[in-house]
Amino acid sequence: MLIKSDLSAANIDLCYNNSMEKKISDKVINRLTLYHCILSDYIDKKIEFISSKQIAQLLNIDDSQVRKDINFLNNSGKNRVGYIVKELKISIEKTLGFKKNKKAFIIGAGNLGTAIANYGNFKDYGLNILSLFDNSPDKIGKIINGMEIQDIKNLPNIAKKEDADIAILTVPARFAQSTADFLVKSNIKYIWNFAPVVLSVPPNVQVWNENLMGNFLQFTYDI
Amino acid sequence: MLIKSDLSAANIDLCYNNSMEKKISDKVINRLTLYHCILSDYIDKKIEFISSKQIAQLLNIDDSQVRKDINFLNNSGKNRVGYIVKELKISIEKTLGFKKNKKAFIIGAGNLGTAIANYGNFKDYGLNILSLFDNSPDKIGKIINGMEIQDIKNLPNIAKKEDADIAILTVPARFAQSTADFLVKSNIKYIWNFAPVVLSVPPNVQVWNENLMGNFLQFTYDI
Repeated sequence: MLIKSDLSAANIDLCYNNSMEKKISDKVINRLTLYHCILSDYIDKKIEFISSKQIAQLLNIDDSQVRKDINFLNNSGKNRVGYIVKELKISIEKTLGFKKNKKAFIIGAGNLGTAIANYGNFKDYGLNILSLFDNSPDKIGKIINGMEIQDIKNLPNIAKKEDADIAILTVPARFAQSTADFLVKSNIKYIWNFAPVVLSVPPNVQVWNENLMGNFLQFTYDI
Repeated sequence: MLIKSDLSAANIDLCYNNSMEKKISDKVINRLTLYHCILSDYIDKKIEFISSKQIAQLLNIDDSQVRKDINFLNNSGKNRVGYIVKELKISIEKTLGFKKNKKAFIIGAGNLGTAIANYGNFKDYGLNILSLFDNSPDKIGKIINGMEIQDIKNLPNIAKKEDADIAILTVPARFAQSTADFLVKSNIKYIWNFAPVVLSVPPNVQVWNENLMGNFLQFTYDI
């Protein structure tokens, strides 16, 4: 298990550490996920073949980039009319380890936690959200998309029992640090932090800041 | 107004276009936003000075990187004990254009739309969310964090009247494309897409895919 940077806002990861240990860069991973999204849509529409040009057009990128990315995969399903949609989808899944089945908890059953619980396709990508946790008696016991909202007090025991160490932190900003402290005590090792707060954690815990504001500012910087 | 790539998942933006037109890279923008987050926290705690080392430690990055990023800013507030927190915060805000006041709408008043409406600090970053839109009679007319949920039918008129062209798309995946088509007809020019779907839009419309799954996979690729 690598100790990665605990910064890792979406697009900062690769630039200063562990780049040598990774086979595929974050940028490629992110693009492959979008290709996977397109392929799922093609399968729904019963379309059998797809060209790098079609993918490139949908994403407004260069088709040589698409071909280069696909070369990372051990994908042999290509013929004159393009890539075989089903095979290319499986190649991406194998390469990105979608089937690894990572167990996680959502911490905070508010709107954001509920939205993530309902997001739908996390399971397809190997993210197995076991349950939500909250401290509100009004919420505890309720079921969201088949997952129970449990009492946050029980997190240490349940995390141990399930051998799960990923937490998706969706509490309001003002509770984020104290909740993170509790997650650390509960033996959580990976925190996917949606709160707009930079958390202070020990070096053996990794935090990935979703940093929505940073993403927004990148988008709108020059408009 | 630049026509940027309509891909632009958080970390893919800079690599294939417009990099020459940007003064600051996406990576730096993202880091500066995190520094801003730390500085806000220091101001709350009434701490006057901060060193590059303190920032670097909180983010688990190199302090030379922090100093390099701060050199992008026209920040003069530095002395022996470190940067002046208040001045550094203002420098970041000026550089990133936080005060530009971009008007936006949230499309879809479900859990995710509500969570974003309640996210709290968007306004500090110059994102002025005017209202939410939905098609559900149960939701229309309700107030979320001071913003009204309006009937989606009225979007074209309201967008024109407010001269607003940014939409934050938070509808379920299965409605994302049809909603995007309606946004395009309503003269929306920028779509911040949270649905796990690659949208097809005309070239004069930019889509920024939040791509949560791609972000998650980057985080967990090597664990």
